[in-house]
Amino acid sequence: MFRKKALTRIEIAAVLAERWSGRAYDPDRPVERDKLLALLEAARWAPSCFGDQPWRYLIWERLAEPERWRRALGCLTEGNRRWAFRAPLLLLACADSRFRDGRPNPWGPYDTGAASMSLAIEAMALGLMVHQMGGFDAGKIRAEFAIPERYECMAMMTVGYQLPEDQIPDELKEREYAPRSRRPLAESFFMGEWGNSFEP
Amino acid sequence: MFRKKALTRIEIAAVLAERWSGRAYDPDRPVERDKLLALLEAARWAPSCFGDQPWRYLIWERLAEPERWRRALGCLTEGNRRWAFRAPLLLLACADSRFRDGRPNPWGPYDTGAASMSLAIEAMALGLMVHQMGGFDAGKIRAEFAIPERYECMAMMTVGYQLPEDQIPDELKEREYAPRSRRPLAESFFMGEWGNSFEP
Repeated sequence: MFRKKALTRIEIAAVLAERWSGRAYDPDRPVERDKLLALLEAARWAPSCFGDQPWRYLIWERLAEPERWRRALGCLTEGNRRWAFRAPLLLLACADSRFRDGRPNPWGPYDTGAASMSLAIEAMALGLMVHQMGGFDAGKIRAEFAIPERYECMAMMTVGYQLPEDQIPDELKEREYAPRSRRPLAESFFMGEWGNSFEP
Repeated sequence: MFRKKALTRIEIAAVLAERWSGRAYDPDRPVERDKLLALLEAARWAPSCFGDQPWRYLIWERLAEPERWRRALGCLTEGNRRWAFRAPLLLLACADSRFRDGRPNPWGPYDTGAASMSLAIEAMALGLMVHQMGGFDAGKIRAEFAIPERYECMAMMTVGYQLPEDQIPDELKEREYAPRSRRPLAESFFMGEWGNSFEP
C-alpha cells in the first residue's frame, strides 16, 4: 500500500498518520475472515455513553454472497459505485436511536462514529483500506435489508486491499495520488474560549 | 499506567486493545504542550463526510487558566465532578450542525465521534488517559463559554496521566479495577441481513 502520511506539526501514531480513504481496491483479494474478525473486535471495544454500544453493522462479502453484496452496492450513489464495485467487503454502520431502556440516545451517531474509526484504524494496522461514505440512499438500504426504524443508517464503507500501484486505473489515479489536507489547527481547536485559536 | 486489555477473540492493535476510560488522574502531572498538540493533530486528521471536518474542540488547562477550567468542571454532573476534578485538562467536543455551505450536516456527531476516538487513541499511544462523558449540562456550558447555536455540544472529556497505582483513592478503586466488558460480537455485527449474527 503506498503511503499518504498526514502532515502534522508533531509525530503522531503511525496508524493514525497513515490512515486514509483510498478508492483503488484489489477485487481479486478478499479480506480474510480473521482480519474481518479483528476489524469487528476493534469496533466492538470502542467507548460509548453509559456503555450502551449503540452501533450495529451490516456486512456484505462479495465472495460469499454476491447477490446481497450487489444489492448493497446498488444503494451507493453512482459516483461511489463507480469505484466501490472493486471492494470485496461493504459495510453499513447504523446507530441505535435509543438506549437499552428505550429512552432516546442522542449519542448514537457520535459513538458509532467512534466505533467506525476504531475499525478503520485496525484496518490500517492490518494493511487494509477503509473508505467511509455518506453518499448512499438510506431509505433504499433500509428497505432492501429490513433495517428497523429504530436504527439510523449513518455510513456505508468499503474494505479491502489496495491494488498494486501499477494496476491503479487511470480514472482513479488523480484522486488516489492527491495530497491529503485538513483545516489549520487554529480553526478547529480553541483554548479556554470559543474562537481563541490553539497555537502550538 | 496499569493495563486493562480488551478481551478479544483475536489480537487487535495495542492502542485499541489497551485504551480504556480511567478516572484516577494525577493532578500534579500536567499534559505537556507537545503531547496536547499531538492529540489535536490526531483529531484533526480524522475522516469526515465531504471532508467537512465538523468537529470543534474547546480546551481548558487547569494550570494555565484555573478559573476557566473550574467553570468548565462546574458544567459536569456531580458524579463526574467527583473524580474529574483531578484531571489537568478538560475538553469539550462540539459538532457543527451545518456544512460549510450552510446546509444541515447529519454527519456532524458521527464525524466528531471519529475525531474524538482518534484523539483518545493518540492519548493511549502517549501514555495518557482520556475519559469521555455525556454527563454534563450542555445548556450551561453553551452559556458559560458563548458556544454558537450552530454547534452541538457532544461530549466533555478528561485528559491526563494516571495516578501511580499506590495513590489511587479508595473510592475509585472498585471502578478502576473493574473488568471491561462489551456485548458479544453476535449482537452488534450482522452478515448480509439484519439479525443474521456474525460468527467468526
